[in-house]
Amino acid sequence: MKRNIYLSSLTLEEAKTLYFDRLNIEALVTSEIIDTDQALDRITVGPIIAKLSSPHYNASAMDGIMIKSEKTYGIDERNPRQFSLGDFKYVDTGDVITSEYDAVVMIEDVRVVDDETIELIGPAAPWQHIRPIGEDIVGGEMILPAGHQIRPVDIGALLAGGIFQVEVTKKPSVGILPTGTEIVEPKKDLKPGEIIDSNSRMFEALINKMGGNPTRYSSLKDDYELLKSHVLMMSQEHDIILINAGSSAGTEDYTVDIIKELGEVLVHGVAIKPGKPAILGVINNKPVIGIPGYPVSAYFVFDVYVNHLMNLWFNTPQRSRRKVKAILSKRMMSSIKHQEYIRVKIGCVHGKYVATALNRGAGVTMSLVKADGICVVPQNVEGYEAGTEVEIELLRDLSDIDNTLVSIGSHDIVMDIIGDMLNQATLSSTHVGSMGGIMAMKKSEAHIAPVHLLDEVSGTYNVKQKNKFLKSESVILVEGIKRVQGFYVQAGNPKNIKSVKDLMREGVTFVNRQKGAGTRILLDYLLNTNQISSDSIIGYNREMMTHMTVASAVKSATADVGMGIQSVASVMGLEFIPIGEESYDFLVAEDIYGSELYKKFESVITSETFKKKLDDMGGYRIENIGRIIER
Amino acid sequence: MKRNIYLSSLTLEEAKTLYFDRLNIEALVTSEIIDTDQALDRITVGPIIAKLSSPHYNASAMDGIMIKSEKTYGIDERNPRQFSLGDFKYVDTGDVITSEYDAVVMIEDVRVVDDETIELIGPAAPWQHIRPIGEDIVGGEMILPAGHQIRPVDIGALLAGGIFQVEVTKKPSVGILPTGTEIVEPKKDLKPGEIIDSNSRMFEALINKMGGNPTRYSSLKDDYELLKSHVLMMSQEHDIILINAGSSAGTEDYTVDIIKELGEVLVHGVAIKPGKPAILGVINNKPVIGIPGYPVSAYFVFDVYVNHLMNLWFNTPQRSRRKVKAILSKRMMSSIKHQEYIRVKIGCVHGKYVATALNRGAGVTMSLVKADGICVVPQNVEGYEAGTEVEIELLRDLSDIDNTLVSIGSHDIVMDIIGDMLNQATLSSTHVGSMGGIMAMKKSEAHIAPVHLLDEVSGTYNVKQKNKFLKSESVILVEGIKRVQGFYVQAGNPKNIKSVKDLMREGVTFVNRQKGAGTRILLDYLLNTNQISSDSIIGYNREMMTHMTVASAVKSATADVGMGIQSVASVMGLEFIPIGEESYDFLVAEDIYGSELYKKFESVITSETFKKKLDDMGGYRIENIGRIIER
Repeated sequence: MKRNIYLSSLTLEEAKTLYFDRLNIEALVTSEIIDTDQALDRITVGPIIAKLSSPHYNASAMDGIMIKSEKTYGIDERNPRQFSLGDFKYVDTGDVITSEYDAVVMIEDVRVVDDETIELIGPAAPWQHIRPIGEDIVGGEMILPAGHQIRPVDIGALLAGGIFQVEVTKKPSVGILPTGTEIVEPKKDLKPGEIIDSNSRMFEALINKMGGNPTRYSSLKDDYELLKSHVLMMSQEHDIILINAGSSAGTEDYTVDIIKELGEVLVHGVAIKPGKPAILGVINNKPVIGIPGYPVSAYFVFDVYVNHLMNLWFNTPQRSRRKVKAILSKRMMSSIKHQEYIRVKIGCVHGKYVATALNRGAGVTMSLVKADGICVVPQNVEGYEAGTEVEIELLRDLSDIDNTLVSIGSHDIVMDIIGDMLNQATLSSTHVGSMGGIMAMKKSEAHIAPVHLLDEVSGTYNVKQKNKFLKSESVILVEGIKRVQGFYVQAGNPKNIKSVKDLMREGVTFVNRQKGAGTRILLDYLLNTNQISSDSIIGYNREMMTHMTVASAVKSATADVGMGIQSVASVMGLEFIPIGEESYDFLVAEDIYGSELYKKFESVITSETFKKKLDDMGGYRIENIGRIIER
Repeated sequence: MKRNIYLSSLTLEEAKTLYFDRLNIEALVTSEIIDTDQALDRITVGPIIAKLSSPHYNASAMDGIMIKSEKTYGIDERNPRQFSLGDFKYVDTGDVITSEYDAVVMIEDVRVVDDETIELIGPAAPWQHIRPIGEDIVGGEMILPAGHQIRPVDIGALLAGGIFQVEVTKKPSVGILPTGTEIVEPKKDLKPGEIIDSNSRMFEALINKMGGNPTRYSSLKDDYELLKSHVLMMSQEHDIILINAGSSAGTEDYTVDIIKELGEVLVHGVAIKPGKPAILGVINNKPVIGIPGYPVSAYFVFDVYVNHLMNLWFNTPQRSRRKVKAILSKRMMSSIKHQEYIRVKIGCVHGKYVATALNRGAGVTMSLVKADGICVVPQNVEGYEAGTEVEIELLRDLSDIDNTLVSIGSHDIVMDIIGDMLNQATLSSTHVGSMGGIMAMKKSEAHIAPVHLLDEVSGTYNVKQKNKFLKSESVILVEGIKRVQGFYVQAGNPKNIKSVKDLMREGVTFVNRQKGAGTRILLDYLLNTNQISSDSIIGYNREMMTHMTVASAVKSATADVGMGIQSVASVMGLEFIPIGEESYDFLVAEDIYGSELYKKFESVITSETFKKKLDDMGGYRIENIGRIIER
């Protein structure tokens, strides 16, 4: 069994220098001449010099009359003077100033005597209210420099300067080859092991965004000769070749050998994460990049290499993303072996930005979809403690982040619904369980925290915990919703689960929630009152972070039963055994309560539309939602 | 003669409230269903819910073997255990974990005994290195909210979540109608009074950028009935109608009357500048906006109304531009009657941003092309003194501005050439004359200042003035170029200009440079040595800001003669009467000298390519360019 060994583990900077110094991109780049009005977003090759002045004649800058200035000398309010048509002429803005005249008087300053006569009460200075030839653009002047991306306003200036066609860099033709026997075109009935080819479509969109011209091939199965012949053909037809997957060290990872056979591999393996197994090669003097299969790895390989390559191609600056300083809400560990790109959510809480790491798995595309920014942890840094100020590269507009209500706490589908209903604001909802929500409020990292925490003594929800853990913080408890908790089981309830006692039965496997989750606390309460030891439940230690993932484990039969809210069972098509109703309320930071942002949230949760959506879903009840339970 | 009177002069906020409250955009907006891989940059109508989990089966997260975890319990380094094929199975990343197994061991931790046997030296935890169903996306989970612009990574996530088609807001059809008898299609031989229709092409590009679907009509002449019939037809065919020009109060400005006749005018005239004469109307319940003819006015009308309209259309946030604090280099006056949008260049000088106003004319498109940002001076504010810290709305990336060498001083075409040759950096060149350059250095507003200042006593250039005006500043004088100064005259030299004495002759009109320009100082020196009074020269007081505009005045015969550098005469096709050679050197701030940015500048001016370009142009000579003349 042949497995590749990574050529090396270069640092990112070493890899980039090695690769981009070797490429001779200037020899590959060509230009084309296109119509100016089709040139939006295209990039100039050389400086563009005006062929025409604008205005190209002396033009009136006002509505009024034109006159010879020397005929007006000596006029003042006590000595007005009358002029006959011919001595003056009416003009509108933009009209030609003919050579007999050298000044314009605004219509507001002209007294009309009769159809042929006017009177002035002041002199006109030579060239007043006249736009001289070339006031805007002088023929021969540079309108745009080289390497400039053409904006709408540039199109206006180019046309006004007599440039009706422009020379721009031709879009590089980028061939995208997905590989892997398991990769299939989008289709409905997927078999286990089949993976929809989503990466190559993401690459296509990225290349379009970067100004290239992508050609996407159908996925090829893992067959060395087949792949080789395709890559060879692509290296003749395209300017840049991207091969997706087959870049790591698995048994069927042929990409590196094919590039070696057809050309040269300069880099294989770079000390970044995600994105380590990238291959940077050359075939036929053309860049060939092997991109890892995990979507998040693929994204970062695009971000660090393909983006750089495209900027070299277009002679445009290597721009960095906007950065912002933020406080880490949790400890963030990283290996000293890699430069790591950690996706984060950011919220503006009490005037400072707080960043929370999202799922770090290279396969978790949603961590990129949800991310507000990226925290880059350099190589040789072990990570950062909670509370450290770090720099975040922004993926979203900062004004959008400022307009985001930050919720950290327990998970419920209603949070998605609220987020969707918010108008001109965003809800950032992070799911860390109820106790995690309380801790986030304590550390001022969240605006609101949805919680459902049972007090085992009184049987009441949330009030006791607020008073216990948030005694000295200014936090308000606002009434949320009542929801039904129960067991998720497969269709037909094959293991016949009826109550918490059934979890102890032989052959029943459970899937649990993480410590601190309200659902876990409810389970422990039930175990306690029924005097059941957690040791007697198989799967008690298998922890999931959300209702959805618990339901998913039951749905896929890796567990027989899990506990969660009713609405998720109906969404996931599972059977549901109700246990009881609980209160899912909101902790709200006092200085957010009353703000514009909170008002938008409040108007959603108290709306009829929201109530109707919950009724339609089932498993929820609204009493006095939005009411202050306790200050 | 009928002239329109502006309906009112509302504030911007009043106008926007009045107009956008009246429009019923929701009734106009429609959606369409398109393929996900075609949905880049399109905007979601509602939330998008995953149909499929990703992974949709339990998948190996590593290359290695899969095994039943309970069979590995009790293994440690001292008690290794062997397994036969069947008890384990080899897997690559992404392979299906079949129900007999519940853990993956990485290949690095597997000791291969023979083809059918392996040995483990540690236990495997249940579910280790397995990506459970839904790890990335759980079916039923929201992937994207409503009003979200689809990015490349979203396309990847949607496809992975089984969403192969998405519902997006249909692009509004925007009809663009240029009007005006003087407006012509782009063509080579323009007659005086003809104006190239550049605006409607700029609008087309702006609408494309905003996600609309523009239809541009050919320009119509100023004929009421013709215009009316077109506007009526457009109001039936398009969602939004834009009429360019005819919006002010001239004799042939029909737009407001046509909208009134066919529908309703809500706003005519808003207290902003440029952009005052905008018309906001409704025909057939559809927005109809009358846009002023001056390109800069038109741009700001797009910026404040059309942009807002499009965001309402797409249900996307009304985003503001990124802002930066900057120090004003000059006093900036503004009328209290308007909210004014002043285009500025920005430079990062000595760690702070310095903003300098560009030409404020509504017809000066180049002020927008060159602008780094906009300083918004609110209504009822008279302006700001030099040195005031103001907020600038950025039009360019701040990292580009940080990478910009700021030059303020005398104008020469070589500055364009240097700017064009700079690699991965920008030259911002503002032309205020040599004395203006010295003042900018004194106030630390520029990195470099090109100057050519004759000392009338010694006949030397620049050294004396540096020592006189910049005695206590840390500024270095660096040798630049030698260039030929002389007179610009029309072809054939019809007025037979040979020397400065000819400027006094009857029938000869001159055009001058502004006070403080090196060329003006040279002229005054020549007049002085020849004992000529400036009063005896017709046109001595007509001032132009650059060599190009002086040449343009001579070219268009509004003056017979002007003074300037040789290279501009050849670019403009004028005859040139040489007077003598002068030194055009660079003042450089000491803390910039030696920086990366300065090194880039230095490598350009000392290059062979630069020398060759100057030779090709003529009128220049290079001696020891880049050498320090005086510290």
